Order: sequence, then C-alpha cells, then structure tokens
Amino acid sequence: MLDQNKLQQLDRMFHPKTVAIIGATKEPDRVGFSILSSLIKGGYPGKIFPIHPRHKEILGIPVLPNLEATGGTVDLVVIALNEKATVGILEECGRYNVAGAICVAGGFKEIGHEGVDLQEQMVEVANRSNILLLGPNTLGMINAKARLNATFWPIDLRVDGTISIVSQSGGIGQVIGFKTYQEGLNFNKWIGVGNHAMLDFDDLIQYLGEDQSTEAIGVFLEGTDNARSFIEIAGHYAYRKPVVVLKAGQSTLAQTCTLTHTGSMAGPYQIYEDVFRQFGLLSVNSPLEFVSVLKAVTLAPPLLGNGVAIITPSAGPSILLVDKLELSGANFVPFREETYQRIKHLFVDVPVILKNPLDAASAGYSADSYLQLVEGIIQDPGVDQLIAITIEHAYRRFPARDLVAIKEKYGKPILVYYIGSEHINEVQHLCHSGGIPLFASIEETAWGATGLIRHLRIREEFNPNAV
Amino acid sequence: MLDQNKLQQLDRMFHPKTVAIIGATKEPDRVGFSILSSLIKGGYPGKIFPIHPRHKEILGIPVLPNLEATGGTVDLVVIALNEKATVGILEECGRYNVAGAICVAGGFKEIGHEGVDLQEQMVEVANRSNILLLGPNTLGMINAKARLNATFWPIDLRVDGTISIVSQSGGIGQVIGFKTYQEGLNFNKWIGVGNHAMLDFDDLIQYLGEDQSTEAIGVFLEGTDNARSFIEIAGHYAYRKPVVVLKAGQSTLAQTCTLTHTGSMAGPYQIYEDVFRQFGLLSVNSPLEFVSVLKAVTLAPPLLGNGVAIITPSAGPSILLVDKLELSGANFVPFREETYQRIKHLFVDVPVILKNPLDAASAGYSADSYLQLVEGIIQDPGVDQLIAITIEHAYRRFPARDLVAIKEKYGKPILVYYIGSEHINEVQHLCHSGGIPLFASIEETAWGATGLIRHLRIREEFNPNAV
Repeated sequence: MLDQNKLQQLDRMFHPKTVAIIGATKEPDRVGFSILSSLIKGGYPGKIFPIHPRHKEILGIPVLPNLEATGGTVDLVVIALNEKATVGILEECGRYNVAGAICVAGGFKEIGHEGVDLQEQMVEVANRSNILLLGPNTLGMINAKARLNATFWPIDLRVDGTISIVSQSGGIGQVIGFKTYQEGLNFNKWIGVGNHAMLDFDDLIQYLGEDQSTEAIGVFLEGTDNARSFIEIAGHYAYRKPVVVLKAGQSTLAQTCTLTHTGSMAGPYQIYEDVFRQFGLLSVNSPLEFVSVLKAVTLAPPLLGNGVAIITPSAGPSILLVDKLELSGANFVPFREETYQRIKHLFVDVPVILKNPLDAASAGYSADSYLQLVEGIIQDPGVDQLIAITIEHAYRRFPARDLVAIKEKYGKPILVYYIGSEHINEVQHLCHSGGIPLFASIEETAWGATGLIRHLRIREEFNPNAV
Repeated sequence: MLDQNKLQQLDRMFHPKTVAIIGATKEPDRVGFSILSSLIKGGYPGKIFPIHPRHKEILGIPVLPNLEATGGTVDLVVIALNEKATVGILEECGRYNVAGAICVAGGFKEIGHEGVDLQEQMVEVANRSNILLLGPNTLGMINAKARLNATFWPIDLRVDGTISIVSQSGGIGQVIGFKTYQEGLNFNKWIGVGNHAMLDFDDLIQYLGEDQSTEAIGVFLEGTDNARSFIEIAGHYAYRKPVVVLKAGQSTLAQTCTLTHTGSMAGPYQIYEDVFRQFGLLSVNSPLEFVSVLKAVTLAPPLLGNGVAIITPSAGPSILLVDKLELSGANFVPFREETYQRIKHLFVDVPVILKNPLDAASAGYSADSYLQLVEGIIQDPGVDQLIAITIEHAYRRFPARDLVAIKEKYGKPILVYYIGSEHINEVQHLCHSGGIPLFASIEETAWGATGLIRHLRIREEFNPNAV
C-alpha cells in the first residue's frame, strides 16, 4: 500500500518526461538495445538518454557517458546491467531525483541465498534514495497512453486500451499481451513485477484501481508474501473494476518452479482460489480464459441477470455452449409467449422447434431474419444476455453494424460466437467498436459469458450501493 | 458394419465419376446453389449434373430436367429438396444405379413423430433401391483428395490432409474444419452424418479405418442408438489410427437439445467417457482440444515414453504448462548428469538453475544456444518428448528448419509452443512440414503433449503385437 506521496511518485514514473537507459548498447541481441528500441518504436514523446561509457550514438540518439551528463532530473531509469552493477548504479540514481527505476537483471532472490542478500541490499539502497523500484528480474513496464514502452519487448503500441495487466512473469505477460492484440484489443498499462522486491502487487493494484483510464485489471500471480494485502486492495476495487486473476502452481512441480522463477512460494492453490472468490476477484485457469473474461467485461454493457439466450444457425455449437454454460449458473429461460409471437413468422414452412437455445436453421443464415430474431428475442424480459452464433459463408455477410444498433437500443450484452476465418478480423473490429465482444471459439465464448455472470454476482454482493 | 460389397459401394460414393444435384438453383441464398458452387470451387474433376425442371444453366454448367436426362449411371446424388420431396426422389434414384445419396433436408426424426415416420419410409426406399443414404439433416460430405466438396459449405479444398472427420453436427464439423484450416492442417474426408438414418458412425469409422489415406479419425458425437457398434469398430482401429471423440451432452439441457437436433438421446456423459477409455478412444472436452490432439498425433513421430522436457526463455509459460501436464501423467524427469555436462557451457555467468523445465533465460533467445540446448537435452534417455517454448522477438528469427533437422536426427517428438503473432503462420508451416506440431497457446500445447502420452498408452494396451 502506498501513501499519497508515493502514489504521485509512481504516477511520475508512469508518465516520465525523461527516461535514461543505463546499459544501452548497439548489440541487437542485448537487452539494453531492445529497451531503447522499444522506446523509439513505441513513439515515446519525452526525452531519451541512452547511457554508455563509450558509445556516441545508438539508433540515431546521442549517448551520454553517465547520469550526471543528463544535466538534471531524470524521471525514470531503466537499468540493463548485470545484477551486481545494478545495485551500484541505483546508489548513483539517488542523486538525480529519479522517481522510479526498472531493474531487469535476474540473479537475485530467485537463485537462492546469495541473491537474497543482494536483493535486500538493493531495496535498502532504493529506500534510502527514495526511488521506487520495479523488479528486479522483470521485462519492464508499458504505459500505452503515454506511449511509453520501457520493456525489452519492442512492440508497436496502441493507445486506446482500457485493460491493465500486472504479471509476475514477463513471459506470461507477453502471452496475455500477444493474445490481447490478436483479439483486436489493446492494453492500457502492462507491468512486469518480477521479484517484486519493492513495488508489489498491492501497490500496483492500488495505483491501477485509482487510475481513471484503467477499466479492468488482469493479474498473473505465482506467489507473494504479501498475498493478504494484495487480495484486500484488489477486493476493494473489484466490484467497480473487474480484477481477473490467473494463479500458477496447481501441481507440486509447478510450485517448486515458481520458487526458482521469481523467488516466491506458490502456496496451496485451493486456498488462493477460495480467498479470491471471497474477496470478489475473478479467478481463471488459463491465459485464454483470462483474456476472454477481460474482453467480455470491458466491451459489453453491464449485465443485469443470469438469463441467457442463444440463437444459432446450427444446433451443435449451441449444445456444446450449453454444456459449458449451464455448469456455471447460466439460466436458459424458456422464452415468453410474446417472444414466440414476435419470431414465429420467420419459421413458416421451416421444420424448427422454437425454444431456447434456438436452432434457427436457414433463418439463422440470412442477415434479415437473423436480425429480426435477435431483436425479437433480446426484448424478452427473461433474457439478460444473448449469444449470437454465426457461421461464415461465402455468399453472406455478417450484419455487425445492425447488431450493434440492436444492442444500443436494448442495452443488454450481446456476445457473438463467430465460426469462420476469412472475415473474422473485419467483423470483430466492427463488433468490438460497437461494444459487442466477438469470440472465435466455443471455449472462449463460454468463458466470456460466464465472466459477465460472475462479475454480476460480485457487483451484487460487494457493492455497498447495490439496492 | 458394412460387408465388402457395401464398403466398395461406399467407396464409389466417395469417389464418384458423376454427381447429380437435385434441386440445384440460381438463388445464392439456397442450399441447392451452395452445393453446386462447392463442387465447382472445390475443383471436382468429374461430371456434374445440376437438375432442375426449368433452368437451362447455372454457374456456367448445363442443367438437366431430371435424372433420366443424364443418360446413364450416376454415382452420387445430392438431394437439396424439402423433406417430403426428398423421399419421392429417392425412389427415382433407384432406377439409375446410384451408389449413394446425400439428403440435406431437415424435418425428419429430429422434429418428432411425423418426422420419425417419414425417416423410416425414406430408409425403406433406400434399402429397397440399394442406395447408401447419408443424412438426412446433413451438411453433406467432402473427400478432399478426390476434390469432391458435396456440402453446402463452399470452401477451397486442400488435398494433402491425413485427418478425417465424422460429425453428427454440420456446425461442429465446420468449427473443427475452420480450426483445422487455421492451424495450417488439412482434412482428408469430412462427413456430416446428420440423423444417420442409414449410414451410421460404425459404417463410416469402418470405412475410414480401412482408408489408407486417413491416418487419424475425429468424431463429434451427440448420441446414437448404435453406440456399442460404433465404439467396438472404433476400438478395433484405435491403436493404429488414433480416434479422437468429442461427445456433447454433459449438462441436462444439452441432452434435451441433442434430441431435437439430430433425433438422438445424448445418454449419460460419464458412461460414454468411461467406455471410450476402455476401448482406447481419445475422449476430449472441446473443439480446441479435439484439433490439438489430432494435430499432435498426426504430425509428430510416435512417442515411446512419458518423459517430458521443457525448455523456455521465460519460466512463467513453463510453469502453467507443468500445471496442466503433470496432472495428466507427464513425467518431468531430472536430466542425467551427462545432459547437464552437454549444456552447462551455455550458462557461464548466466544466473540460471539447471533443471527440467529449463528456464534458459537469455540462452533461450538466441537461435544458436537454443538449438544447442534442444540437441543437448533431447539425447537424454529420460526425455521422450521435448516442448520447446519460444517468444517472438523483433530481432530474432525462430530456427524452425534446424529444429526439424534435430527432430529427424533423434526421432523423438518435439512440440513448439510459439508465443507471438507476426511470424506464426510462416514458422508453423515450416514446423508442420517437418513433423513438428506448433501450438499458439498453453492450453493447446498441453492438450497436444497429453494426447501423445494418451495415445502411447493406448498403443501399449491395445496393440496385439506390442512387446
């Protein structure tokens, strides 16, 4: 937990006017090159100071020999040196009003005794120098809105994301980041906490909880000694901002692995799961589920009940969806009589049984009847969210814009499960822009719809203003 | 079960020299247009007879008024008429030595009493006329090697697939088909059994079991009265050709839905699962798992034991993989002393703990050290399959060709878990061409690796020639 001063200092670290990279280098295989490249590629508008004792220029940017040569305040320092040199340079940073330092080197707590001592020494220096320390053993952090990519992951930044990620593992953070991008979504902030020697989950969740541009928080956790503080602060925000948590360490071997990864004991998985639920966090079991839930809760309008309707041009996919959804508390209400009256004219001479889920057969293919079905069914008072399944076909276009208009008119979540490949990106973009999450698999659709229901329960249970 | 005559007749149906489409039409919204379009787009080299009482030509192909006008034998007839007309035309087909008929219309057993009678009548006609009947209520079937797309799903055909699919639902068949394509894989035969009024799962599994060009069989099942016969015949082939089965109907509502879909009771899910296992079938829980297992078993060389090694540039993804794999019987053996000797020179001055899974940190990024690690580890006698994790990076290329060469040299399965997006298709193509399955998510990697272990057990348990 951070006090107001520290929160402001952390905000300066995330919105730096100047960034120094200590250990910048010309060798493309090295971390110090990738970090500089990330800053440039990301379009960082502030001042960049690559620091190296001998180089004059890297990637077109003048290199300084040391921090002193920057001539003034440096808001953020990225240290791309080995573990021993990292601690030394941190001492020097203290003299230049540095708000925060990212230490990427490994070789600390995660390797055992010697590393533990070095890490303690580093934290002591950072505390004494009033520097907020991210890492060590971290990929770095990204603030997409500030066009700040301070990681050694040189990706293009997209600026309108509302999902922020806190990951104990850089690799899992990348898994989640790549998948988020593939889904046409963007993240807002992406933070690799690594060994979380100083800045810990609780601090960063607190920061993101207060951050206006973050609408949902995703956390990948291996383990932390401050689990209680993390869960309490996450629970404090969870009914307003969904907090999705993926926890490693279900198996015995995995628990051993986390110790040598970021120096944390994973802890008994089931206990974590139970506590997450008690505090209103959305616990998930895999990265695909993680992104599906974040997608649903950030794109769709708030859900108001657990009634689910499905319309589909082919029964099979709806049957597998029902299998996955019914086990998670979705309620497949029979439609009201007036709903049947609204849609029955679409099935004259079509041998179809009208029920929920509705296998609309050929009426589920043509855009016109498909839209009439969606509008006819979404008005049903028992239907709180509608899953519209569609199968790509060479001679038909999916009516994404009209579907968005219906969603706007009735204000209930519509989720699309799109079976196909050729036009999916274009249709997904139209749907996502209009607040309709589109999924490409049954598994992800089920996770998304279930995520909405789970977050509804959390809002009902934890919101002090709920009626 | 089919006798030799019927098997040969079925083979004629799958390799027709002539195809008639009864109910071909010019309206692009209708099934009779899509089927003709599928045949043309698929590149079918045989003779196509669109049949319609008034049209003269559709899509550039001359139309005949009736079957008689074909002037001789028709091997395959696709009937795109409504349910009542379908039965009538089947009677007529009997006079032209038709090997098989695909009946796409719904309105039979799946809609209740009236439909049940009509379906019985249709089967009686087909039996009397010696016609093999596929459907009714089916999307049709594809034989990619014969360039025959006799479905109303006009996709491009790819001809070198080894996976054949039998699906009770056209929609799930398409889910699986699209995903197979997206994975850069192709299918060999794709068969929608629909209401399986005559040609049932057992017949088609028997045919595919004997089919030299099919190396693995995937089945989506809702339910069948002939479950015993299906499972016995599938079990007969399962140790030679992996048979992957996805069964719908875990939830109560889903069981009701299957009845109104293809007229079959789903039956208690757990009983099916147990019986599948007893007979050596690979039961899966979702379409993504279905395709992942088929991909692994068809691309990788045969597995010889349950020892798994993982190498990764970042520990997090390997920890989640271990979580999923350890629960399924994978054995993460410690490496032998000589293995450590082979690789330790790659970690001079790199603070890494040598163990399995191996978090190789920076040595897991450069192609050169990555390949040395793979070759050093795969020689370990305790390692039966190796999962190589890689993270896409702007300044590094994944050494797919060299990895294939190592796999060829040692003959053990290598699976790649590729974290990234930009170059995945190109890398996947190189890997798949060389017998290395590449997966894009932790979930799919785990399913693939587990599938290999499960099929190893089946080979050991059911192969009468196993030593």
